[in-house]
Amino acid sequence: MADVIFGGIEGGASRSTAVIYNGEGKKLAEAEGLGTNHWMCGMDDCKERIFKLIQECKRKANVPEKEPLTALGLSLSGCEQEATNQELKEGLTRDYPYLSKTYFVCSDTVAPIAAAREKGGIVMITGTGSNALLINPDGSVFQSGGWGHLIGDEGSAYWIAWKAIKIYYDEQDGFKNPPNGLNTTFIWQIIQSYFNIKSRFDILPYLYSNFEKSKLAGLCREVAKGAESGDPLCQWLFNEAGILIARFILALAAKCDKDVLDQEGGLPIVCVGSVWKSWKYLEPGFSHELQTNTSKIILKQLSLLRLMVKVATGAVYLGAKAISYNLPRKYSDNYHVFYHYVRKELAH
Amino acid sequence: MADVIFGGIEGGASRSTAVIYNGEGKKLAEAEGLGTNHWMCGMDDCKERIFKLIQECKRKANVPEKEPLTALGLSLSGCEQEATNQELKEGLTRDYPYLSKTYFVCSDTVAPIAAAREKGGIVMITGTGSNALLINPDGSVFQSGGWGHLIGDEGSAYWIAWKAIKIYYDEQDGFKNPPNGLNTTFIWQIIQSYFNIKSRFDILPYLYSNFEKSKLAGLCREVAKGAESGDPLCQWLFNEAGILIARFILALAAKCDKDVLDQEGGLPIVCVGSVWKSWKYLEPGFSHELQTNTSKIILKQLSLLRLMVKVATGAVYLGAKAISYNLPRKYSDNYHVFYHYVRKELAH
Repeated sequence: MADVIFGGIEGGASRSTAVIYNGEGKKLAEAEGLGTNHWMCGMDDCKERIFKLIQECKRKANVPEKEPLTALGLSLSGCEQEATNQELKEGLTRDYPYLSKTYFVCSDTVAPIAAAREKGGIVMITGTGSNALLINPDGSVFQSGGWGHLIGDEGSAYWIAWKAIKIYYDEQDGFKNPPNGLNTTFIWQIIQSYFNIKSRFDILPYLYSNFEKSKLAGLCREVAKGAESGDPLCQWLFNEAGILIARFILALAAKCDKDVLDQEGGLPIVCVGSVWKSWKYLEPGFSHELQTNTSKIILKQLSLLRLMVKVATGAVYLGAKAISYNLPRKYSDNYHVFYHYVRKELAH
Repeated sequence: MADVIFGGIEGGASRSTAVIYNGEGKKLAEAEGLGTNHWMCGMDDCKERIFKLIQECKRKANVPEKEPLTALGLSLSGCEQEATNQELKEGLTRDYPYLSKTYFVCSDTVAPIAAAREKGGIVMITGTGSNALLINPDGSVFQSGGWGHLIGDEGSAYWIAWKAIKIYYDEQDGFKNPPNGLNTTFIWQIIQSYFNIKSRFDILPYLYSNFEKSKLAGLCREVAKGAESGDPLCQWLFNEAGILIARFILALAAKCDKDVLDQEGGLPIVCVGSVWKSWKYLEPGFSHELQTNTSKIILKQLSLLRLMVKVATGAVYLGAKAISYNLPRKYSDNYHVFYHYVRKELAH
C-alpha cells in the first residue's frame, strides 16, 4: 500500500524549492530548481518545472516515481488570481496524472506564515521585489504592495538600487537635490563599477534593451556594503526602505483580526528575502515609522520572525490542511524571533 | 548643374518626418515614415528608413533620385552619443553614396530649437516620454531628464498615466493616501475602461508581459478628458506635471548663457509633444513653481513657443549651418508664443 506523502513548493521568479514530508511530519527530501512564476516562464514551463522538482524529491526519498503525492501545496509567485490558479491545477491534473492526488495553489506570500503560525499573521517579503500579506484566522487575506517594479516593490532590493540611481541622476540633472544634502560620490562609484560603465548614458541598456530586474536589484548588495563601510547615503537608502516596510505592515495591521494582534510577542511578521540581511540599517527608519505614524493604527507590539525551515514547508502544511489531514508539527522549531518591537508610550 | 538642396529629418521612436528645401529656403516636399531611433529599430533599419524618406521627398519634388543632397540634418531620438552618431554618418556615406554630400547628426531635442531661434534656447518635450535640452549660443548643450520611463519621464503622458494608477493602487493597499484626500472613483473608472479590466490584478499584463510604454501613456488622454470634465484628481495630475516641467526648465535655466535669457520675451522654450495640449491644466502648477522655487535661479521671464513648421525644418537649418551655408529664413514665421511668463516681484 502506498505511503501518505505530502509535497510543497515555494516558487519565486528566479528560483523554486520543493520539499516532501511523510505522514508523521518528517521531511524526506528537498530539491531546488528554476523559477515557477507562470507570468514569467509561461504556464507550460511552470507545470513542467513543478513536475520535475517533485520527481527529483521522490527519487531522493526512494518514493516510486509513479506514486502520486497525497497532496501538493504550491505557494508560487504569480499565483494571485483564482482563475489562473484553477488553470494551473487543472493543467497539472491533466498533463501529469501521477504527480499528486490533490492540489492547493496560492501566492508565494502564503506559505511563510503557514510555516510559522496556525492563527495567521503577516509575511513581509523584501528580496528582489517586495510584497506584504496578512492572513487572518478566518482565512481572509489582505495584500499591500506586490505590484512589481513599475508600480510597487517599495523597500525591496530593486527599489533600493533604483532609488540610488535616481538620486544620482536627478542631482546631476539639477532636477532634485539628494536627500539631506548627502554626498553622492560613493553611490556613483558603485553604480559605475557594478554596471561597468563610465558615463550616465551607459546605463541605459541595463534599464531598457537588456533590462533584468534581478541584475538591477543586485546593485543593492553594493549599497549594503556601502552602508557597512559607513557611507551616509547608503545608510539613508536602507533607513528609507525601513520606513516603507513599516508602512506596508501598518496598512495590514489595520486589517488584522484581534487574535492575530494578541498573540505572544504581538503581531507576528514572517520576514522573507535578502534585504532583511541589512536589518541593522533598516531598523532605525522601521521603528521610528511604527512609533510616529498613527494614521492607520497604533501598533503596540510586533515580532519579526526568521524561518529556520524551508518556506516550502508551509506549502506542505497548506496542502495537508486542504484535505483536513492533521500533519504533526512543532511551530516553535520552525522560526526564531530576531526583533521584538514594543511601543514606547508617549507622555501625556 | 545640380541644384543646392537641403534635407532634414526629425526622428522619433515611432514616427519620423523628412523635409527638403531649396537653396532659397523654400520647402519643396515632405514625407512621413517609421521611427528612426537606432536603439529600437537597429542601425541598418535606421539607415534604410532615412534613405527611403529622403528618396520619397526627392520624387515628390522632381529631384533626380541619384542627385545627392547638399547637406542632410538628422535630428533623431537615440542620437545622443558621439560614437554612435559617427557610426550612423559613416554608414550612410558608405551604404547610400548618392543620399547626401554631407551630414549633421544630433538628438531629436536639437532641431526644435534650431527651427525657432539662432541664439539657442530650451526645448521641452513632453509626449509619451519627457526630455529637456538647452543649447547655448556657444554650442554648449545641457540636458535634464530624458532617461526613459524607469528613471525619468517626469511630467510626460507616461508619468501622468503611471501616477494615476499608482495613486489608486496605493490607496487601495492602505499604503499611501491620495494627494489632498482627493477622491479616486473617477480615476479607477477610466483605468478600468481604458484597459478593459475589472480587478486591480488584471492590469499586470499591461505593466509587465505585454508592456508597451505608448499603451500605458495613452491613459493620459483619458485623464485629460477627466480634467476637462472637472475631476479634481485628473486636474491635480496635470498640475503636478506642470510643477515637474517647471523644475526641468529651472534646472536648465541655471546653465543658460545670458544671451539666451535676455532674448525678447525672455528665455525661449520650444514646446513639443501632446501633453502641451492640456496647457490649461499644467499652467497653475507650472507658473507657481517658477514663482516659488528659488533653489536654482530666479527666472524673470520666459516664453513658451509652439512651432508652426515641421521640427525637421530645424534639422535642415543645422545641416546647412554645418557647411556654413546661409539658408534664408524668417524665424518669426516658424512659431507662435502661447504663454509669456513674467515674474511677479515679491514685496520686500
